[in-house]
Amino acid sequence: MNICIIGSGNISMNIGLALKKSSFNINKICSRNELTGLKLAEKLDSNFSKEIIIPKNTDLVILGVPDDQISKISKEIKCKAIIHTSGTRNINILKNCSENYGVVWPIQTFTKQEVNFKDIPICIEANSKKFEILLKSLFLNLSENVFEMNIQNRKIIHLSAVFSCNFINHLFYISKNILNDKKIDFSILKPIIYETTNKAFRYSIRENQTGPAKRKDFKTIEKHLGILSKAKKKKYINIYKSMTDSIIATYENKL
Amino acid sequence: MNICIIGSGNISMNIGLALKKSSFNINKICSRNELTGLKLAEKLDSNFSKEIIIPKNTDLVILGVPDDQISKISKEIKCKAIIHTSGTRNINILKNCSENYGVVWPIQTFTKQEVNFKDIPICIEANSKKFEILLKSLFLNLSENVFEMNIQNRKIIHLSAVFSCNFINHLFYISKNILNDKKIDFSILKPIIYETTNKAFRYSIRENQTGPAKRKDFKTIEKHLGILSKAKKKKYINIYKSMTDSIIATYENKL
Repeated sequence: MNICIIGSGNISMNIGLALKKSSFNINKICSRNELTGLKLAEKLDSNFSKEIIIPKNTDLVILGVPDDQISKISKEIKCKAIIHTSGTRNINILKNCSENYGVVWPIQTFTKQEVNFKDIPICIEANSKKFEILLKSLFLNLSENVFEMNIQNRKIIHLSAVFSCNFINHLFYISKNILNDKKIDFSILKPIIYETTNKAFRYSIRENQTGPAKRKDFKTIEKHLGILSKAKKKKYINIYKSMTDSIIATYENKL
Repeated sequence: MNICIIGSGNISMNIGLALKKSSFNINKICSRNELTGLKLAEKLDSNFSKEIIIPKNTDLVILGVPDDQISKISKEIKCKAIIHTSGTRNINILKNCSENYGVVWPIQTFTKQEVNFKDIPICIEANSKKFEILLKSLFLNLSENVFEMNIQNRKIIHLSAVFSCNFINHLFYISKNILNDKKIDFSILKPIIYETTNKAFRYSIRENQTGPAKRKDFKTIEKHLGILSKAKKKKYINIYKSMTDSIIATYENKL
């Protein structure tokens, strides 16, 4: 099976490496970014072009581009089969590219660091049962956790992942930023962070809540707002207040 | 060494159990809550009273009560040595109780579930070097990670822990709430959550950021706000917006 990947960012790199490890042939990388494109093509023993020129022997095109570029880029493509990798976009935006189109969305956060696909849940949707079965059998080589998921549920999972991944990473960033001023290492929070995460999958998240907002300890909340009011930390007051208000409301059963 | 614990909530239970496991004698539990107080006294082979009556042979009193009750309760106490367990309160609020006073603050989130103290960082402060050394040697029996930390730094760590523990648990709660409506199990996010957390301690948190806010993908952000605008999810819009604004600003280097 010959696979052509459009894009050379984090998702293209991670899917490309995982497919190559499972002995699939990546015949081409197309990417506007010559630097990352050539680098990825070299890693995957693939050809490279800046323009979207798909080799004739290509069995599957994988669109690994940012969500808001899928629609535009897809207009340039004709091929045997194509998928995008977005949690939020409909598969229909690819209907003019091919007779076989769909999505393969790994529920994971991809940065420059290579990830192990084995445990990653992979959501699949296709325009036909036949193509769905093909996609499923293909991606079962990468992960043990591949399943059909329609766009409505994919969007819901994507939204909840924004809360549980993107926002959480930003909270880590803020925590580290607060500690940095006093030259305290962020690793001091490692045990409490892992305990919070482990508990979420073992006990009731509702019961796990602790802290001044849960206790309605307004004196401590005021002190925290006072610290944030000092130079360079004011920017985090909106987050502190919106999170605190929501926690208070949750445990008052008003919401 | 005879230790009397005031309070029978999560922190009293967890410290009591850890001290007992290290073969210390908990001679008394005093708690207004007769139900949890008697239960904890039984677990720790201790006596119990609803009023604060400290046995004469007590060497150390541990105040395991909520932060905003420490000051009031401390007015009732006279003893050989006393500590509170708060990250945010000064040790001086105990100066009328004893010649030896201080704080032992474990950086951890305590709920009804018993935790393993071994890796928990424990911050200590005392009114004298002698009492500090005693507290340190005592709590080194519970954790390998005991150190002196003044009130200014303790408050900073406490604030950053609110972001990285209390707020993160609430984001888990929201994520689960969003998924629940579609009957999707929260465990589908387990790999992405652990990847986010593992990466925070391995790579640059700033570089780890992904998601629509980081990419300035306003189309996806609008879709997410649309989903939240539907009944019963509006309450999370403030959090979504404040987090998204802060991420956008962070990567525009405006803040």
